[in-house]
Amino acid sequence: MNATIAIDIGASRMRAASYTSKSTEPILYNQIATKSEGIPIEDRLVTLIESVWPEDYQIQSIAAACPGPMDPINGIIVSPPNIPEWRYFPLQEFLETTFSIPIALNNDANLAAYGEWYFGSGKGCSDLIYLTISTGIGAGIILDDKLFVGPGGYGAEIGHTTIDINGPECSCGQTGHLEAIASGPSIVRWVKSQLADESLKEHFPDGELNAKLVSDAAENGNQLALAAYERAGKYIGLAIADLLHIFNVPRIIIGGGVSRAGDILFDPIRKSVKEYVISDVFLENLEILPAALGDDSGLMGALVLSREITAGK
Amino acid sequence: MNATIAIDIGASRMRAASYTSKSTEPILYNQIATKSEGIPIEDRLVTLIESVWPEDYQIQSIAAACPGPMDPINGIIVSPPNIPEWRYFPLQEFLETTFSIPIALNNDANLAAYGEWYFGSGKGCSDLIYLTISTGIGAGIILDDKLFVGPGGYGAEIGHTTIDINGPECSCGQTGHLEAIASGPSIVRWVKSQLADESLKEHFPDGELNAKLVSDAAENGNQLALAAYERAGKYIGLAIADLLHIFNVPRIIIGGGVSRAGDILFDPIRKSVKEYVISDVFLENLEILPAALGDDSGLMGALVLSREITAGK
Repeated sequence: MNATIAIDIGASRMRAASYTSKSTEPILYNQIATKSEGIPIEDRLVTLIESVWPEDYQIQSIAAACPGPMDPINGIIVSPPNIPEWRYFPLQEFLETTFSIPIALNNDANLAAYGEWYFGSGKGCSDLIYLTISTGIGAGIILDDKLFVGPGGYGAEIGHTTIDINGPECSCGQTGHLEAIASGPSIVRWVKSQLADESLKEHFPDGELNAKLVSDAAENGNQLALAAYERAGKYIGLAIADLLHIFNVPRIIIGGGVSRAGDILFDPIRKSVKEYVISDVFLENLEILPAALGDDSGLMGALVLSREITAGK
Repeated sequence: MNATIAIDIGASRMRAASYTSKSTEPILYNQIATKSEGIPIEDRLVTLIESVWPEDYQIQSIAAACPGPMDPINGIIVSPPNIPEWRYFPLQEFLETTFSIPIALNNDANLAAYGEWYFGSGKGCSDLIYLTISTGIGAGIILDDKLFVGPGGYGAEIGHTTIDINGPECSCGQTGHLEAIASGPSIVRWVKSQLADESLKEHFPDGELNAKLVSDAAENGNQLALAAYERAGKYIGLAIADLLHIFNVPRIIIGGGVSRAGDILFDPIRKSVKEYVISDVFLENLEILPAALGDDSGLMGALVLSREITAGK
């Protein structure tokens, strides 16, 4: 029987699973730490893939969600901040040579969008934008039931659009990007900058503030923590309004660790989108939804992509 | 013989021309003032169309470039700032009823992009973004040889993306949009705000500064006027970098009155794009070109659209 393999390569762990052509229940699933002393990551990846290769099935194709920036057209990892040893690494070619079957790669945010579109909060919606608010801010764009990456393949980098040219520095070195203002670390940084009034200090007795502590504090009604989500939501909403002006899509899906805060974040986002659109036409039929697949959206997107290769799309 | 009609409806004048299926040389061409006391604009438009309707030809279709915001899917003019009497006016239906042939409408910036793509600086390029820098900042997006307006039809409003949330007020009422910072009137406003040093005052003896005077002064080497274009170019370049991060297209075309300043504007734009992209991959094969069709890009885009209706696309 035919089957396919999907992979999600994260900074800390790599996950792989094999699937029949019908089900999202894996035949075999495994995960390992991405890094280990002495063994190259690509060799660990091969071992991981072999561990989910089911005996009684013919594997038709493999697709992987990879850390960006990467070139999905040529299957080359370009310069992932957390895997420096993969700078300009031709992962697709490496896997094709190793396994002699068709391979496709795309970046993790793009495939998370693809997973949500096919199996999650984007089901049945032909045009949507997916944002993942986490350590960084990534995105994926679905237009006319296809993943849009731009003709050069590097598009959909919505986290790196300038919202406040005088704003804080971004991880990329530029200034005032959405990611620099509303990602998890940016929320924590803002809270720290406001801590003169000490209202949050009881929440981090060991002196180290992080996104989880801010989120817990917000849930317990701490005003400063709530203000931090209010502020992040305002900027994310403003960025969404800008995207609606450009794409006029009916659905925005928000995933990633920071989005788990729920209404504390989604309420200010929805309010801000309404405030910043230039016309109510951009709100018509608009839905702003939390992602449905959690940590699995990237893996599920890789599954959709892998099945597409098998189908010859 | 078959022919087609293209129309460009501007705030001050309406232009119409009839064409055979092969040439961009009009069979008949005419233009009139958009507004006149006592006669509704749509009636003046009908008279204009009749005046370019050639006797020995069978007109197959009419397409018009219209002032935005408008709904190109249903052919409804929504709320053009300069033609308030056309608020929610169903122009497509009106023309279909009047002439009993297929009609298509789209907004002027979108059709200017379409014209440049087919006949101008975008010839042979399947994916591009066209910006018109004028009284406002409009845009049109071509993806995969098709005009992209978003599923709702109101997309490509790139002039209304926020670049500096603390920046000046935009014509739309929001704050810090590209249009509020780098349009013609915004350039003049900035110059006025800097005029304490009086260096430009000799250029406007009658006390009234305008875009043409600033442009002339810049050409004559006036430092403040040059700084105004430097500043506008910086922000336009930053906005283009943001667009490249999202669309990763190989060509950007810039038209509109302000773009006639030439290198005074294009040099700082090109410099700024290089400075603000997050990776050189977005500069690969990139060309930033002036529009080639001048005032005709909208009319030429309407011609392409009109021929497409005839061809049943």
